[in-house]
Amino acid sequence: MDRLIAAIEQTQNPSVVGLDPTPALVPSIIVDEMREEVEQEVDAEQEHELAAYAIAYLEFNRAIIDAVADIVPAVKPQIAMYEALGAAGLDAYTMTCEYAQSKGLYVLGDIKRGDIGSTAAAYAAHLAGFGAHSGHVDMWHEDAITINPYLGSDGVEPFINAANAHDRDVFALVRTSNPSSAQIQEVELASGMHLYEHIAGLVGEWGNSSIGEYGYSRLGAVVGATHPEQGQALRARMPHTFFLVPGYGAQGGTAADVVGMFDTQGSGAIVNSSRGIIGAWKKQEPTSYMSAQDALDHVAVCARKAACAMRDDLQSALAER
Amino acid sequence: MDRLIAAIEQTQNPSVVGLDPTPALVPSIIVDEMREEVEQEVDAEQEHELAAYAIAYLEFNRAIIDAVADIVPAVKPQIAMYEALGAAGLDAYTMTCEYAQSKGLYVLGDIKRGDIGSTAAAYAAHLAGFGAHSGHVDMWHEDAITINPYLGSDGVEPFINAANAHDRDVFALVRTSNPSSAQIQEVELASGMHLYEHIAGLVGEWGNSSIGEYGYSRLGAVVGATHPEQGQALRARMPHTFFLVPGYGAQGGTAADVVGMFDTQGSGAIVNSSRGIIGAWKKQEPTSYMSAQDALDHVAVCARKAACAMRDDLQSALAER
Repeated sequence: MDRLIAAIEQTQNPSVVGLDPTPALVPSIIVDEMREEVEQEVDAEQEHELAAYAIAYLEFNRAIIDAVADIVPAVKPQIAMYEALGAAGLDAYTMTCEYAQSKGLYVLGDIKRGDIGSTAAAYAAHLAGFGAHSGHVDMWHEDAITINPYLGSDGVEPFINAANAHDRDVFALVRTSNPSSAQIQEVELASGMHLYEHIAGLVGEWGNSSIGEYGYSRLGAVVGATHPEQGQALRARMPHTFFLVPGYGAQGGTAADVVGMFDTQGSGAIVNSSRGIIGAWKKQEPTSYMSAQDALDHVAVCARKAACAMRDDLQSALAER
Repeated sequence: MDRLIAAIEQTQNPSVVGLDPTPALVPSIIVDEMREEVEQEVDAEQEHELAAYAIAYLEFNRAIIDAVADIVPAVKPQIAMYEALGAAGLDAYTMTCEYAQSKGLYVLGDIKRGDIGSTAAAYAAHLAGFGAHSGHVDMWHEDAITINPYLGSDGVEPFINAANAHDRDVFALVRTSNPSSAQIQEVELASGMHLYEHIAGLVGEWGNSSIGEYGYSRLGAVVGATHPEQGQALRARMPHTFFLVPGYGAQGGTAADVVGMFDTQGSGAIVNSSRGIIGAWKKQEPTSYMSAQDALDHVAVCARKAACAMRDDLQSALAER
């Protein structure tokens, strides 16, 4: 986790921009302009629309990355949004990750993979790349990924091993931000704990052999901003586990809700916002754009403003406590 | 689940062939021959190796599909194996699914996705396709997918909705076949149940609104062959839930272990074997192959023989009980 923590210190900003484009979040003029381009270049007619969206997502992401690269430490593309466009979308995903890394950003791939050991080892290529005949290839360009721990340690170890070998990190789901998560995660155990606390204990244990210079292991935890008291208790319970905190902004979490998830030095957590930043342009939409470039410029200006506001919001909440 | 059950009745074979290629399971002469081909056609040198494996996986799968299409109802490609090759691998995955469907097979995409509601809705494009400007596109060619239920109902509903709308099915992880799964799935709850039983209850409930002609809902459950008693108890507890049973063969499960997961009519479950069928050629490897086609022919013959043996094994175990 050292590279992420160093990047947070450098920007003085414990926040990550979620790059989760959807058809509704990308100005339609961008898709329209890309549609004209792909109609020239892509043969199969049924793939035009997918390719148009995929290229539009990539352009949209590039504009946002350029706008925030000097003020945020990291971005978190949500792979589901790209997978929804099939293979063309996944090309846009990897190109987004590669572009963000080229701008010095730490890339957290939100992929929530998880399977039995031999299959988890295949998914771990997200971090390990492919050991090719002619050398090593990094296909995914991710510095960290999220995983689902439901299969237990043999489904998690391959990710930790790959992270250790390639200086990457992993975040396991512990307490997610969504409304129905309590149905499973808050189930009461015979031991008196809730299930998410049991999983928190396992995640803490699994990370113990990879603690870095800042005192945090390579295995972090996802803890939703929508559970402030639980998050604060987990912070005390998991002293070596870095938190990825989704749910700030559009999902309802505030800076006051997340401060308890940081350690006493103001480290130990990074807070994600997706729609609040990449969709900020929608709150001040001009009547019309002249071109895709106009729209991208507007998206970029609004995203930077929102990212600065989020940084300032977190900084003052952390200073005040 | 009606289409799957009809296909099982037609073939009299409740088994599914796992298409999980790895570098070790594909004869190297196939990769070598594809490497020569891609060196002519793919510009970027660092992508040669990934492309060679991706095409080799596709050829390997096609040979197996051709060899078993008349005797098995379904195939289950494990997306992780393809994702390990990046975007080129995912092309091989979708082309494998499309080819299997063209041969009349039911395609069960083993993708184990799961996320919060809005993100699960994006993943549900695996079943729903993309509603394009110029019509509807199916990018993934899957008849069913597996999902991870850890996020609760709002992460599952988008998949059930897509399955209902597009005549597809979903299988949620309940009790997985791997050794460490007990760390979480067998945790004892305050209610006296184990966690997997609690999740089984939720899965049964979530499926109740989509029960088909054969009495099974569109939401099935993954129950590992390595837990025969638990599987038998779940069969009684979940009368409308169809089971996908991994772990037969290479992972240690036998026909006797899985019979309890079928209903009294011999329906209610489908058993997966991957390595036992697609890797059957390794047990009788000839000293050398003359060409990739020779190797593919050998893989195909061995796979068909192993698939027949598995069918006969399951049929007699079901007849004997």
